[in-house]
Amino acid sequence: MALPVKSTTSTKQVPIGTRHSAPQPRENDSDTIAHATPRDGRIRVVIEAIEPAVPGGDFAVKRTVGETVRVEADIFCDGHDKLAAAVRHRHAGAGSWSIVPMEPLVNDRWFAEFPVLTEGEHEFVVEAWVDHFGTWRRDLQRRMEAKQDLAAEFLIGAALIEERADSQTAAGTELRRSAQRLRQPSDDGRIEIALDEGLAAQMNQADPRRFAAHSHPTCLWADRERARYSTWYELFPRSTGPDERTHGTFKDTIARLDPIAEMGFDVLYLPPIHPIGSRFRKGKNNTLDAGPEDVGSPWAIGAAEGGHDAIHPKLGTEKEFAALVKAANERGVEIALDLALQCSPDHPYVTQHPEWFKHRPDGSIQYAENPPKKYQDIYPFEFEGAQWQSLWDEVLRVVMLWVDRGVRIFRVDNPHTKPFGLWEWLIAQVKQRDAGVLFLAEAFTRPKVMKRLAKLGFTQSYTYFSWRNGPAELREYFTELTTVPEVDFFRPNAWPNTPDILPEYLQHGGRAAFVVRAALAATLCASWGMYGPAFELMDHLPAKPGSEEYLHSEKYQLRAWNLDRADSLAPLIRVLNMARRENPALQQDRTLRFHDCDNPAVVAYSKTVGNNAVVVVANTDPHNVQWSPVHLDLAALGIDEGAAYQMHDLITNVRYRWQGRTNTVGLDPATGPVHVFRVRRHQRTEASFEHFL
Amino acid sequence: MALPVKSTTSTKQVPIGTRHSAPQPRENDSDTIAHATPRDGRIRVVIEAIEPAVPGGDFAVKRTVGETVRVEADIFCDGHDKLAAAVRHRHAGAGSWSIVPMEPLVNDRWFAEFPVLTEGEHEFVVEAWVDHFGTWRRDLQRRMEAKQDLAAEFLIGAALIEERADSQTAAGTELRRSAQRLRQPSDDGRIEIALDEGLAAQMNQADPRRFAAHSHPTCLWADRERARYSTWYELFPRSTGPDERTHGTFKDTIARLDPIAEMGFDVLYLPPIHPIGSRFRKGKNNTLDAGPEDVGSPWAIGAAEGGHDAIHPKLGTEKEFAALVKAANERGVEIALDLALQCSPDHPYVTQHPEWFKHRPDGSIQYAENPPKKYQDIYPFEFEGAQWQSLWDEVLRVVMLWVDRGVRIFRVDNPHTKPFGLWEWLIAQVKQRDAGVLFLAEAFTRPKVMKRLAKLGFTQSYTYFSWRNGPAELREYFTELTTVPEVDFFRPNAWPNTPDILPEYLQHGGRAAFVVRAALAATLCASWGMYGPAFELMDHLPAKPGSEEYLHSEKYQLRAWNLDRADSLAPLIRVLNMARRENPALQQDRTLRFHDCDNPAVVAYSKTVGNNAVVVVANTDPHNVQWSPVHLDLAALGIDEGAAYQMHDLITNVRYRWQGRTNTVGLDPATGPVHVFRVRRHQRTEASFEHFL
Repeated sequence: MALPVKSTTSTKQVPIGTRHSAPQPRENDSDTIAHATPRDGRIRVVIEAIEPAVPGGDFAVKRTVGETVRVEADIFCDGHDKLAAAVRHRHAGAGSWSIVPMEPLVNDRWFAEFPVLTEGEHEFVVEAWVDHFGTWRRDLQRRMEAKQDLAAEFLIGAALIEERADSQTAAGTELRRSAQRLRQPSDDGRIEIALDEGLAAQMNQADPRRFAAHSHPTCLWADRERARYSTWYELFPRSTGPDERTHGTFKDTIARLDPIAEMGFDVLYLPPIHPIGSRFRKGKNNTLDAGPEDVGSPWAIGAAEGGHDAIHPKLGTEKEFAALVKAANERGVEIALDLALQCSPDHPYVTQHPEWFKHRPDGSIQYAENPPKKYQDIYPFEFEGAQWQSLWDEVLRVVMLWVDRGVRIFRVDNPHTKPFGLWEWLIAQVKQRDAGVLFLAEAFTRPKVMKRLAKLGFTQSYTYFSWRNGPAELREYFTELTTVPEVDFFRPNAWPNTPDILPEYLQHGGRAAFVVRAALAATLCASWGMYGPAFELMDHLPAKPGSEEYLHSEKYQLRAWNLDRADSLAPLIRVLNMARRENPALQQDRTLRFHDCDNPAVVAYSKTVGNNAVVVVANTDPHNVQWSPVHLDLAALGIDEGAAYQMHDLITNVRYRWQGRTNTVGLDPATGPVHVFRVRRHQRTEASFEHFL
Repeated sequence: MALPVKSTTSTKQVPIGTRHSAPQPRENDSDTIAHATPRDGRIRVVIEAIEPAVPGGDFAVKRTVGETVRVEADIFCDGHDKLAAAVRHRHAGAGSWSIVPMEPLVNDRWFAEFPVLTEGEHEFVVEAWVDHFGTWRRDLQRRMEAKQDLAAEFLIGAALIEERADSQTAAGTELRRSAQRLRQPSDDGRIEIALDEGLAAQMNQADPRRFAAHSHPTCLWADRERARYSTWYELFPRSTGPDERTHGTFKDTIARLDPIAEMGFDVLYLPPIHPIGSRFRKGKNNTLDAGPEDVGSPWAIGAAEGGHDAIHPKLGTEKEFAALVKAANERGVEIALDLALQCSPDHPYVTQHPEWFKHRPDGSIQYAENPPKKYQDIYPFEFEGAQWQSLWDEVLRVVMLWVDRGVRIFRVDNPHTKPFGLWEWLIAQVKQRDAGVLFLAEAFTRPKVMKRLAKLGFTQSYTYFSWRNGPAELREYFTELTTVPEVDFFRPNAWPNTPDILPEYLQHGGRAAFVVRAALAATLCASWGMYGPAFELMDHLPAKPGSEEYLHSEKYQLRAWNLDRADSLAPLIRVLNMARRENPALQQDRTLRFHDCDNPAVVAYSKTVGNNAVVVVANTDPHNVQWSPVHLDLAALGIDEGAAYQMHDLITNVRYRWQGRTNTVGLDPATGPVHVFRVRRHQRTEASFEHFL
């Protein structure tokens, strides 16, 4: 993630603790790799392979406030000296560092953990040095055990202690007293003094960390919690009217907030709410011959009434939009807006800023194309133009305008068709002004492009979830996304459908397909979303066979939905979202683990946080009952081998007694194609288990 | 590897081609990651994940002259534009770049290859840009196939062409002519002109690479071939005398050169040849009570006669050393010297430079210790002293003195007990003066420390080979060393024994153990070495049970060896080294592949270069006959499934007909515990195979 520019000091500067007044060379910093004599050849410690880290650039590691950062590094030195290491970290605005000692693991690996307590930019530095007193103390003990003469050693130790004894402090006085005693050949207590734990702690405290090595600072961006855990509902506000002929309004949308909040959603994402162009307007079902009654695509942004900063007059006024934002917030729901950087031919920019568009030899403006396909209702911006900077500035102005109107989440339309540099700059600029603004990248494109967008600053990313239906492909994909390094910068958001994507699986799988896909999305990903009411009402007819477009897509026409249908999935969705709310395990992705199932149609996985563990077992075959032995990795769940435990299905509220690694499930598409189990572990005694039954 | 300082331009500077007069932002360069408005937001291409690369610092990738560098990178851009990419490379001394176009692979990965033709420092940069003409041409073709109107497209193309038409050149004139024709609506040949391959090539040639992205330069160090492929013999020159009472000389050593060269060795490594201290001198078998007849350890460097720059008077004069170097070179053998940065208490430094040592409270100098162990015959240098720079300078002076005396290979004793920074600096300084000087790191220590030494510049490294005896551990270890990223910086050198290491396997395995270990070392590693004549005469008695020290170790006494013994392994070693000389496959490690064997005592692996393929199958059980089916990865060997091929054993000269993936071998420790097969593949017709039989 790009970092806001700071007016005071740059994060690129060497982190200097108060004790370190001289410049400190850094590891992994090309400027200081010494080809001539290095600045101080006495820096002997090496720091390598720091984690977390985002590969491929100087991007920030992502966390949310309240999460813990576990820093690891390879730290070693020549010879046999004892080392010490610490992680220094701070909020980028703070002057002083918090210091956490690192502990050795195996194979020269060290670690430390610290919590992120405040939103915004943080940085950490790994610092490592030769622990001269610790080395002396360790060797003294060995010499003592070998019954060697220690007289000279005590004098060496005394000198070491005196070096660190500050003459101004009580601690210094105490240190000097210890040194004096070590200098007395007559003192029989010298070995006890030398090995005293308190002395070791004091010496550690007073260690000048001479010739310490420092890593290049790692940037870390701490978002608010919703960046990690969010539940999205997408809705076309114009389809909230009483019938398919009446344009819905923000007022109508307010009336939808209660059912949305009751289903457990906390983000309401609206497709573009701006005026819609009329030239080359698309008709119903993406036809080219729109009639006067056709409403057009909300992504054909801009008309005489205004552009990206304006509101479609039929939706309401700026005041009514503010009322919607307020009403939503009162229900714990945030409004997310679409940011689609493109214009209809009627957009005011076209005449006011022709320099932001590409012109054809006949003087016309280049419309969007992916030859031979033409999108004549859309003018893309020309980002290679001479006026690129004023265009970027305008994008920032528009975003900040909506931020000022209370919008702090943006779903960015096709970011992969605009320059990476724009997003890196824009997101940094916005976060500098309001660290809590979140960006969801709608980049359904190649993996490395998606990852780059996540690295450079997008808070969350749409995923291939929509097309990953089978257990093997789900396992492979979500394992990749939830392990290092991806888990440190890419936050997946799983959508079973969108207005652009009605997957084949939903077209043909019936109700069970919708149930399974909702359960998978809600439990595989700490952030998931659905496009409704199409989803909860199981809209499943494509525009034509083989297409993923919806028939009568809301992208091109008004729709009216009967939310009161008896078969609505709203109650199931509410149960899933309540399970998410009550189980911290489901509010993060880092601990996702898949478990083996013998039946290739069945997938099983778990998430854990502390004592909270959730296991999901799903039948991905929407047509047939499937049975499978499920082999749980008990260690990952904190269950003892052979122990009994309870599996409490949060959908049906049925409880099962399981024991050991392997248990068998049967999942019927008609009655229950998926289990979302809360694991209730055996507490202390066998007898107490009976309480659960 | 550290790079020599150049007096002219730094490699850290941005590589600017002649066409690029403006500063170019770089990828992966922390200075240019844009938090404020980037320098040019129109640079849309991203370059990531460049290989080869050495992780953990700004270290050079290693190659030898004549090798090919295959560069790969992830390259992508927003949108649908066609990209182009190239690798620019040059010898660091050269002003101009060679440019190799990159080709796309799958998943946004691109590659290019170039040979390294000259010794020394090279650098390469990945450059990538939007191919505007290629994009236009591709889209034109699509539009044509869709039968769209192309009139405006021809005009756009004409403008693109005119932009690149240099008015001063013939090529420019030709381009302008093409553009003119594209501007003629009446010209029926416009589509042929537009899609003409010659025009595409010209436009490609003239592409200004506007808004090109550039990677941070990667440094590459090209060593002479012996860095990659070398065959080492270690010998104590003082043990070349006629008997155990007569100190050998350089003259005696010259007499040993013929048998050494005949065995196929090309490096003769001598333990330290300097005067040896007498204070605390070690007696035979590492005893503490040396008598006047004891010769001491060569690693206790320094006496009244001189230190690291002097020659032990009993070995000979400087002139006699020069004669040895000359005589060796005449036989294709290079002399390698030991560089052991430590002093005996009698070293001239001790009095002349007390500031380079650590002083104890009683005024004495701190001897080497690893408490409770004491090494009173050795004074280590104090590298944290205030005079560290003059100490480093002296080390450089000593090394360059020996370089001036004709020594261009150094085996560095325990480099892991001296600062990494010293080595990085020293090796860079020496290579700046003579790029052909090679350094072998004798760091038998923890894996990350060994790798760091290799990264910072050591040419070759001793390995854990000495203790890797079984197939599984050999496979795991050598797979690690010969794959990315290790293969790009760590060059293993396998030693079945050294004066410090008589492995248990050799103590108890009899002749078969020596045969197998020699064959494994010689074929697993393009560089191997042995300590002789102890090895070829199968010296296998330890100082005491459980010790890896030799009984009557040459480290502490003179030995006399009977090279004419009938059971000497010299003939076998000659055969192995000739097989190495005749098979380029064995002169590199990059293509090492292990093949599955059903019997866990049997190991099989191959190396290939072009048409040359060698397969080794060894029985690691020195006591029992072992049979095993060997399942070859035929694709790795370039053999068609089901084809017959000949396996020509280069040790016994016996030829076997094998067919298909699985064939069975039987290996008898008594008669032949290892096969070194040259694979002779079936050429063209079945009939021709008969020629091999």
